[in-house]
Amino acid sequence: MVRNDLSRRMMCALLLCSIGCMSAAWAADTPVPPDALASDPAKLGWMVGSPPPPDRIVRFEDGSYWNFPALRWSVSNFRQLMPTVNTSRGLAAPVPLPRALRTDIDAIRFTPIGASKSMTWKEALAANYTDGIVVLHRGRIVYEHYSGVLKADGQHGAMSVTKSVIGTLGATLVSEGRLDAGKRVAEYIPELAQSAFGNATLRQILDMTTALKYSEDYADPEAEVWAHAQAGNPLPKPKDYTGPRNYYESLQRIQAQGQHGTAFAYKTVNTDVLGWIIARVTGRSVAELLSERIWQRLGAEQDAYFTVDSIGTPFAGGGLNTGLRDLARFGEMLRNNGKFNGQQIIPKAVVDDIRRGGDKELFSKGGYPLLQGWSYRNMWWVTHDEDGAFMARGVHGQRIHIDPKAEMVIVRYASHPVASNAANDPTTLPAFNALAQHLRNLPR
Amino acid sequence: MVRNDLSRRMMCALLLCSIGCMSAAWAADTPVPPDALASDPAKLGWMVGSPPPPDRIVRFEDGSYWNFPALRWSVSNFRQLMPTVNTSRGLAAPVPLPRALRTDIDAIRFTPIGASKSMTWKEALAANYTDGIVVLHRGRIVYEHYSGVLKADGQHGAMSVTKSVIGTLGATLVSEGRLDAGKRVAEYIPELAQSAFGNATLRQILDMTTALKYSEDYADPEAEVWAHAQAGNPLPKPKDYTGPRNYYESLQRIQAQGQHGTAFAYKTVNTDVLGWIIARVTGRSVAELLSERIWQRLGAEQDAYFTVDSIGTPFAGGGLNTGLRDLARFGEMLRNNGKFNGQQIIPKAVVDDIRRGGDKELFSKGGYPLLQGWSYRNMWWVTHDEDGAFMARGVHGQRIHIDPKAEMVIVRYASHPVASNAANDPTTLPAFNALAQHLRNLPR
Repeated sequence: MVRNDLSRRMMCALLLCSIGCMSAAWAADTPVPPDALASDPAKLGWMVGSPPPPDRIVRFEDGSYWNFPALRWSVSNFRQLMPTVNTSRGLAAPVPLPRALRTDIDAIRFTPIGASKSMTWKEALAANYTDGIVVLHRGRIVYEHYSGVLKADGQHGAMSVTKSVIGTLGATLVSEGRLDAGKRVAEYIPELAQSAFGNATLRQILDMTTALKYSEDYADPEAEVWAHAQAGNPLPKPKDYTGPRNYYESLQRIQAQGQHGTAFAYKTVNTDVLGWIIARVTGRSVAELLSERIWQRLGAEQDAYFTVDSIGTPFAGGGLNTGLRDLARFGEMLRNNGKFNGQQIIPKAVVDDIRRGGDKELFSKGGYPLLQGWSYRNMWWVTHDEDGAFMARGVHGQRIHIDPKAEMVIVRYASHPVASNAANDPTTLPAFNALAQHLRNLPR
Repeated sequence: MVRNDLSRRMMCALLLCSIGCMSAAWAADTPVPPDALASDPAKLGWMVGSPPPPDRIVRFEDGSYWNFPALRWSVSNFRQLMPTVNTSRGLAAPVPLPRALRTDIDAIRFTPIGASKSMTWKEALAANYTDGIVVLHRGRIVYEHYSGVLKADGQHGAMSVTKSVIGTLGATLVSEGRLDAGKRVAEYIPELAQSAFGNATLRQILDMTTALKYSEDYADPEAEVWAHAQAGNPLPKPKDYTGPRNYYESLQRIQAQGQHGTAFAYKTVNTDVLGWIIARVTGRSVAELLSERIWQRLGAEQDAYFTVDSIGTPFAGGGLNTGLRDLARFGEMLRNNGKFNGQQIIPKAVVDDIRRGGDKELFSKGGYPLLQGWSYRNMWWVTHDEDGAFMARGVHGQRIHIDPKAEMVIVRYASHPVASNAANDPTTLPAFNALAQHLRNLPR
């Protein structure tokens, strides 16, 4: 409940849940969180029992669902915590992902960035609090692993990986001419004319180069992100509440700070604006459009779902939940230039545009010291490395990693105690690159 | 939000949503609700638009989601209104239901009970505010129809049809010897020892012959049903709230009135007790057990789901939501004595026990003038007619109708303005019987 006495902790929880933030779910005054084994949500028995023991009940209303290690249960159970809307897979038989499991992957060694000692792929799973990971090589599952409470037939929060999915929908509509990336946002959403977004172009939204007076600094109680989080909270508002009551109302209040198009500035609200534009132009919510355009055509094996605000708006900035293998199907479709299951699901031009990337100069102003030389395009992170790898990234370790040269797709769901990917990148990036190197050298 | 000023309307809404009650969602002071066409939720455009118009937003928190005609949208969208838990279909390909659609069904005529004029099957669809109906004859779909916002790939609230599903699970455990129908409830759930249920037998629970001081009279503000509904409401409780905070706490407060085993008394809380016993004995919630035991083995084409209370308890008394064709698979399995998809999914003995029925004498004291000669067994309604028909019934017109002699299964989801099936039985019962007569005479 958003009470009058709404605590900082709860707001943080809502935010962390919903927005790709840089803060930590693990309290900063406690230096070392429990490791993957000690925090295993299956071993801890969250929500097991009839009733569960009082100290094993996970609640949304007081924000405790986002405390670490309860968070490790919550990311696989958003649906049990709040209202959601389905993204139907349709009713046909799922399209199978061929399997050719490799036993040599666990032993692959790499050295984490800044570390003096190497570690194995298998050790990295626990180091990154991996809930599930699937590796496709040349279209076949070569590695699949689950731990904790995530199972193959479960769904997990994609967090900001959602943005890349919505960016793909948006770029597809641009490619089809249904959206014009050069148009100002206010031309699509007149309600945003007086906001920062009104005179931004759709391209600036897609590449997150808008200039917003909008802080996602969770240490700052005045940060605008709190108002957005509270607006999107589906629980009833307190009686004396006067702020925005849903995502759309919140977006209308965001003001500009500086010039659009001068720097990459990663802010979740851009994706919420994109979701609004998509809904307005197509007459379908992003949840419906994702089903029609992609999920049903991928032959997904599970419905996906989005968390929603109090008026049913799917949270475009971070509300998607999927089965892990379905996220792998999505990644494999992109690796194959938009083709999967014998169909062109999104135009090749969209993938080409993502792979070419965005403006590296603008990206360099975004504050990502580990990601030098990268760019951001259509809500995808583009490495510009020799493999042409690009990726979707979500807080607490969510990832789609597509390496065209190695013909490899990695999808990972995780529940790292630290939200920011800066905490797991030093392990994740070299691990994924070591696997790419291993796989690319295999004979066909 | 369960506010201090929680209104009667909202409590009624919660209840109607959740419990198989005899009240009306349509305000009694307005004599004639709009007909099916005028109340069509797709035509009215609930929750359509970005944002939807203010008068087309459906909200859980103030209970307005259960006002007619908004209710017609809500029954197909419970997941968007509140937290839920999945009943996975698994990941395999669905088992197809063969199709042999018949065009002669729409014209079948029958005379509603108490009416002077006959009507056609097709006219009855609108008269009963049918959202979707599927008829299987000899295992093939001979009729399928959707209207409003329900689609083949959507899910609809089964309401008290849930009870028959849970009763089937309970009777299966009895048949396997994992539960003993002669044991007292307190032997399974010591927490219920001081409640009315403590000294009731499991058989009395399964057949609803407990004697409870528990009124489901919604016109009475002191009726115990209000406390149960508020306990099960997943929204945060008001600060000054001192009542039970979840289904389990609520059940412990229910007191006896009279002698168990002396009359059929249809009360939702019996099914909640059964759900608790099932969870305690198997270590699985009814949502999980339904997936493992039935949904995955039926080859369902969609996941089902349950609404939950604030500690994640699936609402055994009325919280199941399914795709309509999956409910048809469930019904067809029962018609085939527990076999479907080449497997014995539930023991034949369970179906035999349901078909034999319960005590007609006790049933006659239950207050169902339209259902003379019927009985209630394992949470199924048994007609004892010459066809041996038995059924599951949920408020607002939900139904599984199994007619062994006619080799027919009808499943119907509906959003009738009046909760009680007494409002649609005069049309439903003769319509279904007329169809049975038509089908049973067809050559093989």
